[in-house]
Amino acid sequence: MKIDGRAWRTIWPVEDRAAGVIDQRRLPHEFATVELRGLADACVAISDMTVRGAPLIGAAAAYGLALAANADPETSSLRAAGERLCATRPTAVNLRWAVERVLARLAPLEPAARAAAAWTEAAAICDEDAEANRMIGVHGLPLIEKLAAAKKDGPVNLLTHCNAGWLACVDWGTATSPIYQAHDAGIKVHVWVDETRPRNQGAFLTAWELGRHGVPHTVIADNAGGHLMQHGQVDACIVGTDRTTAAGDVCNKIGTYLKALAARDCGVPFYVALPSSSLDPALGDGVKEIPIEERSAREVTHIGGLGADGAVEEVQLTPAGSGVANPGFDVTPARLVTGLLTERGLVAADRAALAAAFPEKFGKS
Amino acid sequence: MKIDGRAWRTIWPVEDRAAGVIDQRRLPHEFATVELRGLADACVAISDMTVRGAPLIGAAAAYGLALAANADPETSSLRAAGERLCATRPTAVNLRWAVERVLARLAPLEPAARAAAAWTEAAAICDEDAEANRMIGVHGLPLIEKLAAAKKDGPVNLLTHCNAGWLACVDWGTATSPIYQAHDAGIKVHVWVDETRPRNQGAFLTAWELGRHGVPHTVIADNAGGHLMQHGQVDACIVGTDRTTAAGDVCNKIGTYLKALAARDCGVPFYVALPSSSLDPALGDGVKEIPIEERSAREVTHIGGLGADGAVEEVQLTPAGSGVANPGFDVTPARLVTGLLTERGLVAADRAALAAAFPEKFGKS
Repeated sequence: MKIDGRAWRTIWPVEDRAAGVIDQRRLPHEFATVELRGLADACVAISDMTVRGAPLIGAAAAYGLALAANADPETSSLRAAGERLCATRPTAVNLRWAVERVLARLAPLEPAARAAAAWTEAAAICDEDAEANRMIGVHGLPLIEKLAAAKKDGPVNLLTHCNAGWLACVDWGTATSPIYQAHDAGIKVHVWVDETRPRNQGAFLTAWELGRHGVPHTVIADNAGGHLMQHGQVDACIVGTDRTTAAGDVCNKIGTYLKALAARDCGVPFYVALPSSSLDPALGDGVKEIPIEERSAREVTHIGGLGADGAVEEVQLTPAGSGVANPGFDVTPARLVTGLLTERGLVAADRAALAAAFPEKFGKS
Repeated sequence: MKIDGRAWRTIWPVEDRAAGVIDQRRLPHEFATVELRGLADACVAISDMTVRGAPLIGAAAAYGLALAANADPETSSLRAAGERLCATRPTAVNLRWAVERVLARLAPLEPAARAAAAWTEAAAICDEDAEANRMIGVHGLPLIEKLAAAKKDGPVNLLTHCNAGWLACVDWGTATSPIYQAHDAGIKVHVWVDETRPRNQGAFLTAWELGRHGVPHTVIADNAGGHLMQHGQVDACIVGTDRTTAAGDVCNKIGTYLKALAARDCGVPFYVALPSSSLDPALGDGVKEIPIEERSAREVTHIGGLGADGAVEEVQLTPAGSGVANPGFDVTPARLVTGLLTERGLVAADRAALAAAFPEKFGKS
């Protein structure tokens, strides 16, 4: 998407010797790019959240394997690299998917041919991700058009949680793709952006990317969305997902479940946007079966922001001696999901509909 | 309650010449007390939130009038003092209630007798507030005892939102009163403390007061509570309320409604603790009738915390150019409330039960 008029992706190859990425830890107060020049760089970039978002993590892992193949294309070395990459973020299903795809592509090749093939495969993963997200927007646009047609005046108000934007992907974003396409088509849209504590991906990233592309938006505390829905100020929720079960249960950023409950209580449609790569047909009951990553206490006890002197600083929020818990995700049961917005269209959040839309994922192709 | 072993209230007389208070703006990173030595000190302490919480504001206003009576006990002077106090936080209902109560007590007295009577009345307001909150705990304790008896091992896990603790009152707190009494009675309790963005009263005040009294607790992002409830890690929610309608709808800190929805979805009891002074029988449907205060955008865009150099600093969270909305409260419909915990016992959240428990409030005494 655009940053102040210029088109960008979140990751790009640099002469098959590095992968360029936006350093997302420094947003929104500073825009900077970094080059990942080896497997270790890629692992650190994923684990320290220089890059984040399931699709972008997958793309970064693919480039991580390409960097590993540059250094040592032997099978055992590549397998070890894949394991290192998969260990960086245990909940992200795209990560393992991308690693396995690249390894499968390289396995039959002579070691000398593997590096070039890995760079090609990583680029293909990026292009396919961008295209899948563009198609999510193509299928989501009519939903926003319908909401716009039903409004007498004022913009269509959409609420989103966390960052399922283009910064989380290669381009377009998942939840944001219909929003960008509606905005670009001249439909008046306005986005309520949950700040998304503890890491504030909404306030830091979604607000930034919407603002840079020119989409009207308002940042709110995570606590505010229920009140807005009670008072008719939200026409639809659109969120992303890190992992979606065969039953249509959705594992997304912590707090998503609370917004889905409010949407149901207030009669607001709750859409979840996903590329089919986030589907995990091996899982059924998401609440019972999906392991939830417990993240660092420091994300809750401290927060970074722009200090009075213009530098980004971290301040401590909690009293010394108070314990902290920090589950990174929660699961929204399929019964609360109005529909799954995929690259193949809007699919009901249940096994039969998902199996019909993605037969190859359910072993019926 | 106790601060590191020593008993405190939030406000206390100093030889009938000053009122001592805890400077709550400096919590949790620094504990300091200040003496209010005249009417002007009391007005500033209320308006700059050195003291906050509806019951404590009322008590501070009562002492403000006692300080005014020390200086000039004439009727016109006292009335002017009352108006100055009422203007400090125009929406705080307890403030005007306390001012009117003290003025009514002093009116029939000779000016020379008024100062002493004012100090006595202020002390009575404090004692009555403490006693009402103690009784909330007396009635709430059996609920926690029952939860403890049902558990095989481990503590009773209670979740609270914002600060309905003793720091908001004179002593005990509302939501915290049953928790302190259970803890003091030797029942193992553990409190999940919602940080409560945007002002972080949970992380700043509730965590601090629980910690100083020795109650085990864990601070969580406001987003985390639903996930914890889905996984059986919350035995009950207990929150406070700023205003409660005749129908039992509860207006409390923004985000309370989301936790009530999760509690209902997960089968977790959701209790609301209140002194009957927060009942407003003139209101019926809280969602439709209660005006919600839109607070300063700066509470969302900036946050204060302890910097690396040990001083409290403010940092900016949102990107320049992003708009912000900040509704201060939301309304939890009575249908989501398991019970109202009052100084007269546990009352169902409906008009008939409230009218039976508080007939004098419903014009039936």
